[in-house]
Amino acid sequence: MSDPRFYSAKGPFRVDELADLAEAALAAGADGTRRIADVAPLDAAKSDTISFLDNKRYLEAFMKTQAGACVVHPDTADRAPPGIALLLSKQPYHAFARVARAFYPLAPVEPGIAPGAVVDPSAKLGPDCRVDAGAFVGARCEIGARCQVGANATIDAGVVVGDDCRIGACASLSHCLIGNRVVIYPGARIGQEGFGFATGPDGHLRIPQVGRVIVHDDVEIGANATVDRGAGTDTIIGAGCMIDNLVQIGHNVQLGRGCVIVAQAGISGSTKFDDSVVVAGQAGFAGHLYVGKGARIGAQCGVMRDVEAGAAVIGSPAMPVKQFFRQVATLRRLAEKKDDE
Amino acid sequence: MSDPRFYSAKGPFRVDELADLAEAALAAGADGTRRIADVAPLDAAKSDTISFLDNKRYLEAFMKTQAGACVVHPDTADRAPPGIALLLSKQPYHAFARVARAFYPLAPVEPGIAPGAVVDPSAKLGPDCRVDAGAFVGARCEIGARCQVGANATIDAGVVVGDDCRIGACASLSHCLIGNRVVIYPGARIGQEGFGFATGPDGHLRIPQVGRVIVHDDVEIGANATVDRGAGTDTIIGAGCMIDNLVQIGHNVQLGRGCVIVAQAGISGSTKFDDSVVVAGQAGFAGHLYVGKGARIGAQCGVMRDVEAGAAVIGSPAMPVKQFFRQVATLRRLAEKKDDE
Amino acid sequence: MSDPRFYSAKGPFRVDELADLAEAALAAGADGTRRIADVAPLDAAKSDTISFLDNKRYLEAFMKTQAGACVVHPDTADRAPPGIALLLSKQPYHAFARVARAFYPLAPVEPGIAPGAVVDPSAKLGPDCRVDAGAFVGARCEIGARCQVGANATIDAGVVVGDDCRIGACASLSHCLIGNRVVIYPGARIGQEGFGFATGPDGHLRIPQVGRVIVHDDVEIGANATVDRGAGTDTIIGAGCMIDNLVQIGHNVQLGRGCVIVAQAGISGSTKFDDSVVVAGQAGFAGHLYVGKGARIGAQCGVMRDVEAGAAVIGSPAMPVKQFFRQVATLRRLAEKKDDE
Repeated sequence: MSDPRFYSAKGPFRVDELADLAEAALAAGADGTRRIADVAPLDAAKSDTISFLDNKRYLEAFMKTQAGACVVHPDTADRAPPGIALLLSKQPYHAFARVARAFYPLAPVEPGIAPGAVVDPSAKLGPDCRVDAGAFVGARCEIGARCQVGANATIDAGVVVGDDCRIGACASLSHCLIGNRVVIYPGARIGQEGFGFATGPDGHLRIPQVGRVIVHDDVEIGANATVDRGAGTDTIIGAGCMIDNLVQIGHNVQLGRGCVIVAQAGISGSTKFDDSVVVAGQAGFAGHLYVGKGARIGAQCGVMRDVEAGAAVIGSPAMPVKQFFRQVATLRRLAEKKDDE
Repeated sequence: MSDPRFYSAKGPFRVDELADLAEAALAAGADGTRRIADVAPLDAAKSDTISFLDNKRYLEAFMKTQAGACVVHPDTADRAPPGIALLLSKQPYHAFARVARAFYPLAPVEPGIAPGAVVDPSAKLGPDCRVDAGAFVGARCEIGARCQVGANATIDAGVVVGDDCRIGACASLSHCLIGNRVVIYPGARIGQEGFGFATGPDGHLRIPQVGRVIVHDDVEIGANATVDRGAGTDTIIGAGCMIDNLVQIGHNVQLGRGCVIVAQAGISGSTKFDDSVVVAGQAGFAGHLYVGKGARIGAQCGVMRDVEAGAAVIGSPAMPVKQFFRQVATLRRLAEKKDDE
Repeated sequence: MSDPRFYSAKGPFRVDELADLAEAALAAGADGTRRIADVAPLDAAKSDTISFLDNKRYLEAFMKTQAGACVVHPDTADRAPPGIALLLSKQPYHAFARVARAFYPLAPVEPGIAPGAVVDPSAKLGPDCRVDAGAFVGARCEIGARCQVGANATIDAGVVVGDDCRIGACASLSHCLIGNRVVIYPGARIGQEGFGFATGPDGHLRIPQVGRVIVHDDVEIGANATVDRGAGTDTIIGAGCMIDNLVQIGHNVQLGRGCVIVAQAGISGSTKFDDSVVVAGQAGFAGHLYVGKGARIGAQCGVMRDVEAGAAVIGSPAMPVKQFFRQVATLRRLAEKKDDE
C-alpha cells in the first residue's frame, strides 16, 4: 500500500470495473465483483490489491503473488497462482497504467500564491494556478490555466506556459514557449544560452544566442536535465517526448514527436530527430546529425553519423546492434585464442 | 593554511596528540611535543603543519616536503626528509582523516529560521535546526534535531528527516524518508517521479509513481545528483552509501550498505546492489540487475548482466578486468600487424 | 528574426559597417550601403538579415539563402547566390560572432535588489548590481560592480565575485573566489565539498575539504555543472575556460587558460590540464593525471594516463585518434571475415 504521508488512493474498484478501464479481458473464472483497494508490486501485493506482470524476470514473483488481481499477457495466464483474478491484455504494462491512473489520478492543483512567492505585476496567470513558496514569475510571463509552479522555481521574463503544466521545485525557465500538459521536473534548466563561441587568437568569443526553446504538448523533462535555447533558430522538443533526468539537449536540437531520451544521454547542437526515436542511457550524439524515424540508440552509444529510420545501433562509434555483438564475440574469441597459445 | 574567509582551524595540537587521534605510531626520533597548527598538502606544507602520503604519485613531493609532521605507511618511512615527525599507519589516508577532523570538526548548526524562509505551520522542526534564507519546509514535514536546511532548498509536504542532517542549497526533497547524519549536497533531487510510462499507439502513458525514497543513516548524496522515488515499492539507499555528483538513481533501485557511486554514473530502475559495491565514474547499469557484495565496476563500464559478489568488471559491455585489458592488447596488436603488412 | 518577447536587436547597420566590425573584406560588387536589420540562420534569412557559412554541411542552404548579406570563407564565395553581399573572412564563425554581438550586445544589468531577495547586511555589493527575487547573498560576501545574481541563486558566506559577473537562476556558490566577467549558468554548483573519504572497517570516514574554488576571469560554467572545492589545495579554473552543461570537476582539479570542456564530461580529482585543452562530450578522466597544452580529447574518451601536449586521443581507454580508427576498422574486418567463414 502506498504511504498515506504522501498518497491517498481512490477506490476501491471492482475487478470488472478495472478490466473495463484497462481495456483488458477478464479471464475465465475470475470474480468480477471482488473489490480492489490499491495497486502493489507482485511481491508485496495482498488479496485486495492488483499487480501486473510485464517483464519475464518477475515470472517467479507472479507465480507466488498474493495479489487479488493481476494484469498479464494471455500467454502467461496459465502460470498464475490459484484464485487470482486475471485481467488479460496483450499490452499488460499499458493496461496496468490505466488501472494505476484510476487509483492515482493527477491531483488537482490547489490554487493560490504561497507566501514568499514573487509574481511580477505584469505577468498573467490563468485561472486556478498555484505558485509555491519562493517561486518567481517574471515580467510579461503568460501562464495558462491550472498550472503549478513549484517552490523556488524561476520563470524568467516573457516565458509562455500553456494549460495544466507542472513546473518542478527549483527548476528554471527562460526564453521558451511551453505547450499544454508539460511536466518540468525539479532542477531542470530550460532556455539558457547554448555553448556557442568562436575560438580565435585572443580566446573564445561568445556568440549571442537569440533563439528560443519550443516545448510542445505532453512533454516531460526530467530532473536536472538541461535544454539550451537556439542560437538563431529554435531548439524544439516535439509533442509527447519523454526526457529523463540529467539529459543534455544542445542548442538548435530538434526532436520529433514521441521521442524517448533516457537518463544522462546528450544530444549535441543542431542534431535533428524524426519522430519516435528512442535513446538509451548515457548515449551521446555529435552535432549536426539526422536520426530517422523510430531509430533505437543503445546505452552508451556514441553516434558520429546520421542514423537511418528504424535502425538499431549501439557501440562507440555506433554500429548496427548485430554487428556490435558480432564484434564483441570476435574480439573475445581472438583474445582467448591468444591466451591459449 | 586554509583561507580564514571560509575556515577556522582548531588546535594547535601536539604531534603525540595527533598520533593518538590517528591511531598511528610515532616514528623513532619524532618530537612528540612539536606543535602543529594545521593540515596542508605535501607541496604547500610548512614546519607547523601536518600532511600525508597515500598515493605513490606524490612520493617525490613527500621526499621534498617542508611539513613538520606527516602520516605515512611504515614501508615508506625511509624516504622521509630529515627532521620531519612521522606518524606511521598502515592506512595513512584513514589516519589522516582523523587528524584533519580534529582540526576541522563539523561546524555546529547555528539555530534559527532565516528571513525569507517559509516553514509550514504544520511542519515539525526538532531542536536547534537552522532553515536558511529562501528555504521551504512543507506541510506535515518532520525534521529532526540539529538539521540545516540550506538557502533556497525545498522540502515538500510529508517528508521526514532524521537528526543532524544537512540539506544543501537549492536541493529538493519530496516523497522521502531520510535517516540521521545524512548530507544532501546542493541541487540534489530526491523523490521526484521515476521514468515510468507505457508506450502505446496514442503515445506514452504515464504510470503513477507511488513509492518513496528511503535514505538510511550516514548517507551522502552529491551535488545535482538525482534519486527517483519508487514506482510501487521504494527506492532504497543503504546506510553509509557515498553518492557523488550528477549520479542518476532510477526508481526502485536498492543499494546495500556502504556502496560508493562515483560521479556521473547511472543506475537504471529496479537494479539491486548488495553491500559495499563500488562504481567508478560514468558507469551505467541496465535495469532489473543484481550486483553482488563488494563488486567493483570500472569507469565508463556498461553493465548489462548481473555481477557476482567480489567481481571486478570494466568495459562496455562489462567483462572481468583482466579479460578487458587482454582484449585491449589483442586488438592493438592486430591493428598494428595489419599496419605492418 | 529574433522573438521580441525575449530580444531586441540593435541596428540596422550598413553592410560596410558590419564588414568593419567583423574585420572582414567586402567582396567585389557587394553593396556596402545596404541596411541589415538582424542576424538569421541561412535557411530563415531574408534580404534585410545577415547570415554565415562555417560548416560545409550547410553549403546547400548557403547556395539557396535569401540573406541580404553573408559572412563566408573566401574559398566558398563562388557558391553564393546572386545579389548577396558577401563579407569575406578566413574565420567566418569568428567574424560572424562580432557581427552578432553588434546586434545583440550584452544587456546592461538593471540595478536593484528585487522583492524577496535577501542580502546579508555584512555583504558588500559593488555599484549597479542586481539581485533578483529569492536570491540570497550571505555574510561577508564581496560582489563587484555591475553583477547580476539570478532569481533563487545562493551565494554563501565569504564568497568573492569580481566585476560584471552573471550568476544564473538557482545556482549556488560557496567557498570560492570568482574573477571578472564570469558567467555561471542556472543550477551550476560551485564550491561544495569534494568526494573525499577514507574507507575503513567501520565504513567511510569523511575527510574535511578545506580548500576553495578559484575561478579566473572570463570563464563560463554551464547549467547544472558541478565544481567541487579543493580538499587542501584549491580547485582552479583558468582564465577564459568554457565549461558546458552537466560537467563534473572534482576537487583539486586545475585547468589552464582557455580550456573547453563539452557537456557531461567529468574530470576526477587532482587532474591538471595545461592551457587550451579541448574535451569533447561525455569524456572522463581518472584522477591525478596531467594533460598537456592543446591536447584534444574525443567524445566518450576514457583517459587513464597522462596525455602529451598537442595529442589527439579518443577511445576508452584513450589512444591516439588514428590508432583508434585503425582498430575500429580492424575489428570490423575481422568480424566480417568470421561471418564469411
